[in-house]
Parts: sequence; structure tokens; C-alpha cells
Amino acid sequence: MAPTVGGGDDALLPDLPRGPLDAYRARASFSWKELALFLEGEDLLRFKKTIFSTLENDPLFARSRGAGLSLDKYRELNFLRCKRIFEYDFLDIEDILKNPLKVSTLIHCLGMYDWSLATKYFLHMLVFGATVYNSGSKRHFRYVKQTATMEIFGCFALTELSHGSNTKAMRTTAHYDPSSEEFVIHSPDFEAAKFWIGNMGKTATHAVVFAQLHMPGGQCHGLHPFIVQIRDPKTLLPMPGVMVGDIGKKLGQNGLDNGFAIFHKVRIPRQNLLNKTGDVTPEGTYVSPFKDVRQRFGASLGGLSSGRVSIIGMSVVNLKLAIAIALRFSATRRQFGPTEEEEVPVLEYQMQQWRLLPYLAAAYALDYFSKSLFLDLIELQRGARQAELGREIHALASAGKPLASWMAQQGIQECREACGGHGYLATNRLGDLRDDNDPNCTYEGDNNVLLQQTSNYLLGLLAHQVRDGACFQSPLKTVDFLEAYPDILGQRFEVSSVADCLDSAVPLAAYKWLVCYLLRESSQKLNQERQSGGSDFEARNSCQVFHCRPLALAFMELTVVQRFHQYTHQPGVPSPLRAVLQRLSALYALWSLSRHTALLYRGGYFCGEQAGRLLESAVLALCSQLKDDAVALVDVIAPPDFVLDSPIGRADGELYKNLWGAILQEGNVLQRASWWPEFSASKPVVGSLKSKL
Amino acid sequence: MAPTVGGGDDALLPDLPRGPLDAYRARASFSWKELALFLEGEDLLRFKKTIFSTLENDPLFARSRGAGLSLDKYRELNFLRCKRIFEYDFLDIEDILKNPLKVSTLIHCLGMYDWSLATKYFLHMLVFGATVYNSGSKRHFRYVKQTATMEIFGCFALTELSHGSNTKAMRTTAHYDPSSEEFVIHSPDFEAAKFWIGNMGKTATHAVVFAQLHMPGGQCHGLHPFIVQIRDPKTLLPMPGVMVGDIGKKLGQNGLDNGFAIFHKVRIPRQNLLNKTGDVTPEGTYVSPFKDVRQRFGASLGGLSSGRVSIIGMSVVNLKLAIAIALRFSATRRQFGPTEEEEVPVLEYQMQQWRLLPYLAAAYALDYFSKSLFLDLIELQRGARQAELGREIHALASAGKPLASWMAQQGIQECREACGGHGYLATNRLGDLRDDNDPNCTYEGDNNVLLQQTSNYLLGLLAHQVRDGACFQSPLKTVDFLEAYPDILGQRFEVSSVADCLDSAVPLAAYKWLVCYLLRESSQKLNQERQSGGSDFEARNSCQVFHCRPLALAFMELTVVQRFHQYTHQPGVPSPLRAVLQRLSALYALWSLSRHTALLYRGGYFCGEQAGRLLESAVLALCSQLKDDAVALVDVIAPPDFVLDSPIGRADGELYKNLWGAILQEGNVLQRASWWPEFSASKPVVGSLKSKL
Repeated sequence: MAPTVGGGDDALLPDLPRGPLDAYRARASFSWKELALFLEGEDLLRFKKTIFSTLENDPLFARSRGAGLSLDKYRELNFLRCKRIFEYDFLDIEDILKNPLKVSTLIHCLGMYDWSLATKYFLHMLVFGATVYNSGSKRHFRYVKQTATMEIFGCFALTELSHGSNTKAMRTTAHYDPSSEEFVIHSPDFEAAKFWIGNMGKTATHAVVFAQLHMPGGQCHGLHPFIVQIRDPKTLLPMPGVMVGDIGKKLGQNGLDNGFAIFHKVRIPRQNLLNKTGDVTPEGTYVSPFKDVRQRFGASLGGLSSGRVSIIGMSVVNLKLAIAIALRFSATRRQFGPTEEEEVPVLEYQMQQWRLLPYLAAAYALDYFSKSLFLDLIELQRGARQAELGREIHALASAGKPLASWMAQQGIQECREACGGHGYLATNRLGDLRDDNDPNCTYEGDNNVLLQQTSNYLLGLLAHQVRDGACFQSPLKTVDFLEAYPDILGQRFEVSSVADCLDSAVPLAAYKWLVCYLLRESSQKLNQERQSGGSDFEARNSCQVFHCRPLALAFMELTVVQRFHQYTHQPGVPSPLRAVLQRLSALYALWSLSRHTALLYRGGYFCGEQAGRLLESAVLALCSQLKDDAVALVDVIAPPDFVLDSPIGRADGELYKNLWGAILQEGNVLQRASWWPEFSASKPVVGSLKSKL
Repeated sequence: MAPTVGGGDDALLPDLPRGPLDAYRARASFSWKELALFLEGEDLLRFKKTIFSTLENDPLFARSRGAGLSLDKYRELNFLRCKRIFEYDFLDIEDILKNPLKVSTLIHCLGMYDWSLATKYFLHMLVFGATVYNSGSKRHFRYVKQTATMEIFGCFALTELSHGSNTKAMRTTAHYDPSSEEFVIHSPDFEAAKFWIGNMGKTATHAVVFAQLHMPGGQCHGLHPFIVQIRDPKTLLPMPGVMVGDIGKKLGQNGLDNGFAIFHKVRIPRQNLLNKTGDVTPEGTYVSPFKDVRQRFGASLGGLSSGRVSIIGMSVVNLKLAIAIALRFSATRRQFGPTEEEEVPVLEYQMQQWRLLPYLAAAYALDYFSKSLFLDLIELQRGARQAELGREIHALASAGKPLASWMAQQGIQECREACGGHGYLATNRLGDLRDDNDPNCTYEGDNNVLLQQTSNYLLGLLAHQVRDGACFQSPLKTVDFLEAYPDILGQRFEVSSVADCLDSAVPLAAYKWLVCYLLRESSQKLNQERQSGGSDFEARNSCQVFHCRPLALAFMELTVVQRFHQYTHQPGVPSPLRAVLQRLSALYALWSLSRHTALLYRGGYFCGEQAGRLLESAVLALCSQLKDDAVALVDVIAPPDFVLDSPIGRADGELYKNLWGAILQEGNVLQRASWWPEFSASKPVVGSLKSKL
């Protein structure tokens, strides 16, 4: 019998345990189960429950409190768990076709458990596997099959020790030798070592290696992907000519083995070139459907857009976990109060609300954006080549990744601090979340570098409009409002009371003005820099800090606000959920906007003291309105306790009992230190080494 | 023979190795050795060199790359190193009296090496030892002596599992029993366990325990400090009735053993009460020089101010280390360029300059502030009771700690991201710096809570002035400008060119206006809230987010700017150093101020687009001016390579060679994983466990 939605432990959404959080739950304005169902739907909720229960019931996934695993042991355990995921085979292709969100849901569920596991699996199956599938042809399908059965283990080898952002500048070479019909893969020196490659450190047998393709005649056709076998699957020993190793401990995700490889004239068959965008005939002629190198290069790296979309989702997951921990803590931790006898939960303080509730709202708004952009991407992949949609999604993914990863980074840090000392205890997991989230700011493109893609997109549209009279129109309509560009620039903030400020329509209008203002400022600045005689390279660099960067971020925030505003104001929202969702939408929008207040004043959209005060008052009013809903809102997004894995964030709210219990479960809590005689028997002679100074 | 200032390795300031950083060093506008001498003086430079060389020459302090120490092993090593510091006995009392800065210099040098070592030593010698000395009397001096010889090991036990910020609410009790002339120390339940106590986890034999003092008659005299023996120094086993243990892994500083203790009716002699602020006669009469509990409590916790001043210094050290690493990396890492052939150091990008150089300027400005406040504190401690000076220093320390610790937190994170993937490698140390710095935001008072002390101080002065017509005057003159309060509020920004903006006098004037504006706004808001009928508790809470908090921070920034402005503009600055120091002063001031632009506009200090643009242009202009000095400025503040301990931050600038070398030194870099058969021999049967779902 299928589990019911409500009710006991078997239910799709089991009742939460009673305890100190009851008071807040009782005050919530809505039913958390109804909201969970509305946001995710029964199918996804059931899928998540299956994954979570499976992990919880399998001792291999037991949480290993205080085990203090060595790097090697952690990687072994992570590999075994990855293998077990193959045995569970949570998803088959039909499921995926029916509901593509299940792919990201699976990754997110594994990530909520442990990002090392999710990334290990993801890099092998979806990055290596999908790249071979998408960039190769029929002759490579056996690799895809072997990936699915784990006969081989894959990695994606693009970056080098001395090059990351500038992908075109990679220096690994692939010389074609027609006599043997082979490519010779070679690293000119250790600075060209493939470096930072996930799964390469200890596990991968095969790599998609990006190398500069050189023809016998001496011509270089630029970067191409090749399948290179780096280890023998039978022994996991390196293949001849491959020096492959582990880059060592990172700030986080240490269950994943990131590695390096240096190739010394390693020969691979001609067929190992992933030939979708360019191929070499047996005789040594280069053939490509693309006319120029730039176009071909763009197409061969097109897959990176999906990487960025994935990172948006991963960042949102981290933000959700952190805010769940911090808000449950804040609702149960009491400190100070109106009298010396009575202490109040720290969530009652305006300061604590302001520190945390905007991040809760951001988690909801970005979660919706992340899902909708993922579905846009699926649409793109299913459709025929849709250049315009591709460019728009590229622009959204390139700014969405910075926005989401920074939001998570800052939100987790705020949660850590908002939990005081207990947030600094490893067992409460905020440290791991911060550390595991951190690379989201860096890989698949440094955030600051990526933002240029988005501002370039917008400036390009503007130039096109100015030059050719083209309309501002895009498939997802994110730029269509720019048609009213001059009108919008003439608008002013005209709200006069806090009550009128409490809907996201207000910040939405302000954001449209802001993007138009920054677009105009950026375009003028760029022209000015160009006219003052600098190269295009210099001109662009001089416009980033205070023009193109805020332009890209403001546009991105506008898009997130716009989508969440529409979602929360659609007629389909059940009426009991409408108020809380619209408050979240307004809080996220106003709070984000408030970081741009200086520009709103400077450009004349705001005038007088009242506008700025209204914005502040509205943020605080929404925090106050949402405070009693906060615990229930967290119940919607928090995974089960086993997965959340934070004593101070458990659903029963028994903050101290849980924390105390966890501490006592660590190793050697009460035991005397093994090195006690170093204190007791061997005393220092103070100053005995002073003569050596 | 005393080493000379310049020259070879024996010199006080040895020449730096030649390499890829030469180009920037050659372009510097000043001599880094001259600046180092000017800032620190020969005596302190020599002292630092002695400490650093001593550590480098002692194999016990060898950097253990990739050793992947277990918690227990790390703590053992840290303890052994701490003991060795006693043997070196770097400082005697005469040194300290001659130059008190040597105390903080010693802590900073140990911290640059490893904060776990510095805090272990500091908590024992300066927190435990100094508390016994300052809060006790003659009868406790033997403990001070035993601390200095390490016969005992100490810790400072104030916070409990369920109480940190609200120190008054501690629940550990001390009942006096006149029949045996003993106190009975007791924890009513585990929520009252002393918790988070540094050194208590494994090492401490004695604790200063804060407990509520109850008299036989039933009266409670509030929190008092007691010396409680918690372990037997002969065995390091717990004393009867003491359950003492380790709270486990933290986000950082894991060489330090933080612990907890539960007391079950533990009896200690009457004399163990640290009796400076209150004592109990053998018969059971309470005697105190203070009239009321509040006054006495304030005095007994007065020592906390020095803790906060220390944390400012520790935070600055972390910021210096991080910025040194990131700037040397940025000067040697090349990515992209005007042509495909030519790549430029990333430091040449305006974006990278803007991300990092303001933090470099902040490190210099806050370093000066930190030292000057430390000397003010010494002045306070040497002088007779100077209530006014004490209050002013309390206000500066309470906002200085948040400002410095957050600056370091954000700066280290920016450095981490600015170094891209390589910043995420543990070996490059930015992760450890971030993790070790993090508690600075929390302990000795949560940053947001502490800021209230400073805003209360300012609001109190204003009320005093309004009520009694008192002057705004303070011993350190930080508030004296408020005498011109109404005049200042009438001032406007009247600079019209970027060139006129490049001195810190401009932001200094703006900051004075800003503090006056926020003071008026906060005071009005507080009155308004009080008049609307809320309790004082509620009224104050409603003013924090957008009033008192920014007031405290702006006042603090003003004070830092003011002091650094004076320092860099004094006639004693050697002329070759004047330009670079004044640029640092201007950059820090303008950049900090730029985060308040919204308020400058809102309150009418700024008007029109030009003002905001000037501020931005001035920041970028200063970044550009300082860019060629950045490496030399970092040479001044970076410790020797052995201490900095970051391959990408070494003084020779050989980024890749150093990183590559470090990676190859890690354990099991090239070795096959021990668990290889789990991949090679034991393949998963895909879906074999699917039926269990």
C-alpha cells in the first residue's frame, strides 16, 4: 500500500517529533506538509523519501561521528558508497525522461548526505559519461556503457596547473601520427599537468583529456577532447607514460580524490578523439562541421553551461541545510530576556531575524529559480539547435552560479556565526557545509570572471538595438522589459508607506530601473574607455568593478525576483500558502535590493530620507511577519535528521540533549590523553634553552 | 656581533630571494626594509627574528606537510611545542616592562606559526595566570608561580553549555560550608556544564571556575571566580566528583583541546575564592569593597576588555598572512592577456586589485590601530583607576573586535577565492587561516552583541550632554569631535575631482558626518520606541539592525581612519614612505566609507551622481597607484616562508615549482589506493539492490 501524505513514520511526510519547537510550529500560518506538496509534488517527495530511507537503513551509510577518518579511509568509504549507489540504481532512463528533475533531485539527496559522494558519482556518470555521449559518436558508446556498469571509472580533465580560467591556453598536446593512426598525448612540462581533476587522484581509469590538436603538417586546430586511459582497470596501476597522482587535502570534499596527470608521449587510437565537433581521418586530414576555431571551441565547451546550472542547485541545497540548522537552533536557544528570570529564544530578537530570515527567503527564491532554469536547460537540450535560447541560458547560468554560490557562502557563514560557539563545533556540520560549498565559487569558472559573460550578453543586446534597431526579445523573456528602457529610466520610487512596500512588485519595479541604469552607465563607460584609446581588452577591464559586475548581478537578481514573484502570485497557489510565499518573495527582493540603495539614490530613483527608511522598515516588518513561520518553513526544506546530521538542528528541537549526546559519542571524550606523562613526568626547565636564542 | 639591518641571511632583514616577483619589487616606490624599520623598530624586528629562527631551527616545529595528524597526535605535538616555548622562555618580566608590545608580538609570532600553539600558551599563561593574579590576592600567588613553571596547567571556565553571551545567567553554584570552611562547587545539570573551555579537554589541572556564590543563609551574591583543581597533576586523571572531557573536533584550532566539566559537589578550600572583588570570612560573612552586585560583577569581568584587544591583534595577523599569500600569488599567476600569446599577472586586472588591495590597506590601518589600542590598555592598567578611560577603551575594544574579526573573515575568504582552485588546496593555508580566525567573531562576546556596548556608550554620552549639558570629551579624544555635532550635520561633500579625493582627510570628514547622522537617527529612534510604550529591552532591540549597529561600526571605522590618518601624516614619517602610507590610509578610508554610500546620499551629505562616482573612481585610482607597491608592502608584513607556510605565497615567487614540490611531498601521492581491489575485483551489480527500495 502506498504511504499516505500525512501521519506516522511510514507516511510520505511523517509528523515531526514533539518538543521545544512545538511552540513555533503551533504559531505557523500554514501547514508545512501542504507547502512541501505544493512545491515538490508527490512524485519527487516520494523519490526523496526512498533515497533518504535507503541510506538510513544501510549501515554502510551510517554517520561516523568523530571517527576522524584519515584521507585514505574516507576515500575508501566514499568509493564503497558510490558503488552501492550503482547497486541501488535509484534512477533509470524512463524515470528521467518522465521527470528530468529526478536527476538533480538524486544529486541533491546524495549531496545533502555528503557532497563527496554526490560529486564522485556526478563527475563519473554525468560529467565524464555525458561528455563522452554528447561530444563523441557511435564509436564511443561502449565507454558510456562501461561507465554505467563501472567497468571503467571516469574523470574530466580540462584544467592544468597553470591554467584554469583561460581554457583556451591549455598546453597539453595531441599530435596525430598517421603511420600508426594514433594520437600522441603529451604534457610539455609539469605546469601543463592536468590538475584539480575530480576522481583522477586515486580512482579514474579513463579521462576525457582536452589537448591542442596538432596535425602532421604542423597545423594546430585548437583544443579537442580525447578519451585517454590513465589506469589499468584490473590493477588500478597507471598506464605506461602516465604519471598520475593525488593533489592532496583540500578545504572540503575530501572524500573525493582530486588529482593530476602528466602525459609522456602517451599513444591512443585515433578513434579516441571525441569527434562531434571535429575529426581526423586515418590519413591525417582534419574535418569539422564548424568553420572557425572559435565557433568549434564554443560548441565543444557548451556542456559547461549545464555544469553551472548544476552548481546553482548544489549551492541552494547547502544554503537550505545551513539555514535549517541555524533557525532550529535560534528557536530553541534562549539568551537574555526582558527580566533576569526569563530568557527568550534568540529568534525573537530583531537582529537574529534580520541575520537569518533573508537567507531563508533567498533559499526559497533561488530554489525555485534553480529548478526553473534546469527545466529551461532540458528544454534547450531537447529542442533543435536554438542559438538564442542557448545564449540566454548561458547568460543566466553564468550569473546565476555566482549569485547562488556567494549567497550560500555568505549565508552559511552567517548561520555559523548566528549559532555562536556551537556553530563552530564540527559535529554541527556548518563547517563542512561551508567547506564543501566553497568550490562552487570557483570551479566551472571563477565567479567574477563568469559575470562578464552576462554583462557582455546585455551590452551586446544593447549594441544590437542601437546599431540595428533590434528589439529586446529573448526566448525566456528575461530581457524583454528593456524595450521600455528610456521609460523605465524616467520612473521614480513613489511608495509612501511601509504597508505598500510589502509586496515584491515594489522591488521588482526598482530592479528594472536599476538594471536599465547600470546598463546605460556600463555602456557609456565602455564607449568612453574605448574612445580614450585603450585596447578593447583594456577598455573592458576598466569597466568591470563598478559597472559590468553590478550590472550582471542586478540583472540576475531581477530575474530571480521576477520568477519567484510570478510563481508566488499565480492563481494556482493554494490560498493558505499565498501569504507566506508572497512574504518570502517580498523579503528576498527587498533585502537584495537594499544592497543597491546607494545606486538608487545616486541615479535619482530614490529621493529624500523616506525612501531608504521605508526599505529598511519593510525588511524588518517582513522579518517580523515571517518569524513565527520560520520553523515550519524550515520543516519544508530540511531533510530527515539522519541526513541533516546536526545535533543542534534536529527536528525534535532538543538542542542540548542532542548536542550532549553527540559529544559523548566522540572518541576518547573522557579518556586521559595518551601523552599524559609528557605533562606529569617530564617538566620543562623554564629558560633551559634560552642560551640558544 | 649584532646583525645588520640589510644584507644576507644573518641580517635583521635579509634580502629576499630573486625570482618572478622581482619585476614588481623593482617597481616599488619605497624600500620595504625602511618601512619595516619605521613601523616596528629594530627592537621588535629583532625579537621577531629570534622567535622565527628559533622555531625554524628546532625540528619539533618542523612543518608536517600532509602528515594528516589525528586529533590526539596533533594535540600531543601542540602540547610538546607549548612546553618547548617554556624552555625557550622568550620573554622575561623586564623585557615586558621595557616594551609591553613584546607580549603581543610573542603571541602573534606563535599564532603566525600555528594558532593552536598560541592560544594554548596564551590561555594558560595570560588568561588563567593573569586572572589569578588580577582577581586574587597574596594567598593565590603560589598558583601564579606554578603556572609559570608549568607545575599546573590552567584554563578559564566561564561559559556553559546553555549560556555564553548572557554571562550573568551562569548556573554553576558555589555553596559555602562554614563547618569545613569549604565551598561546594556544583553543576545542577548537564546544561550547566562548563563548556568550550580551552585547555580543559585534555590538559588543564586547574580552572578558574565562575559560579554563583551562595551563603549558608541562602543569599546569593552572584558570579564569583574560584580556583578549582580538576585533574591530578601527577596523573592527569580527573579529581573526584569532576567529570571532565573533550568537546571534540572544531572547525579550526584543533591542536587546542576545548573541553567541558560537570562538578558533582566538589569541595574546595575557602581560600580558593579569588577574592579581589568579594570574599567570605571563615565564619561565613560576605565582604566586598563594592556596594552592589552589578558594580562588583563589572569589575570581576573587567579583564575581558584585554581579551578583546588581543583578538583585534590576532585578527589582523590573520588578515596579513592571507593577503600576503594572495598578493604574491596574484603577482605571479598569469591568466589571459591583450593577445592570445601574452598573458599578464592577474594583479594587473582592475578587478583583482579591487578585490585585494583594500584588504591590504585594511591590514595596515588596523595593525596600527591594534597596536595603539594595546598601548592605551597598558596605560590604563598602569594608571590608577581611571573610570573614564576604562569606559572609552571598553567601547573601542567592543567594536574593534567585531570590525577586525569580520575584516579578517571577509578578507581571508576573498583571498581564498582570488587564488582560485589553488586557494582551495589545504597546503596553501588559506583554509586554516579562515578556520582559525573564525572564532574571533564569536568568543569574548558575539560580534553583534558586542557592538551594543559601543553604541550604548555613544548614546549615553549624548544623553548626558542633552540632560546635563556635559561636553563630549574622552581621555583618548575619540568622541571629542561630537562637540561640533550640529555643525557637522550641516556639512556637505564638496570635492569635485578625483585628485582631490585621494587623501584620507576627505573620507575622514565624511565619517564624522556619518557618525553624527547615525547618532541622531539612533537617538531619535530609541526615544520613539520608548515613547511607543515598549519596555527598555524591547526599545533597544528594535534599534539595533539599522541604527545602533551601523552607528557602532561607523564610529569604529572613523576611529581607525582617524588614527591611521594622523600616523601617516605626522612629520616623523620619512619622506620616501609618505606617499605609500598616505595612499594606504586613503584607500582603506574611502573603501570602508563606500559601504555607507547609501546613508551619505540619504542624509544629504552626498548629492547628485558625481559624488558617488568620485568615490568609486578614487578607490580605483588608489588601487592602481598601489598595485606596483603591493608586493613590497607584503614583504613588510609577511613572516619568513617557514612561518607563512604557503607554497603559493613564498617570497621567491616560484608559484608552480613550490606548489608542485609541496604536492609531491604529501603522503601516498602516487601510490595506488589501498582499496584498489574494491574497484578492480569486486564490481557492483547495477540495480542488484533495487528490489529493496
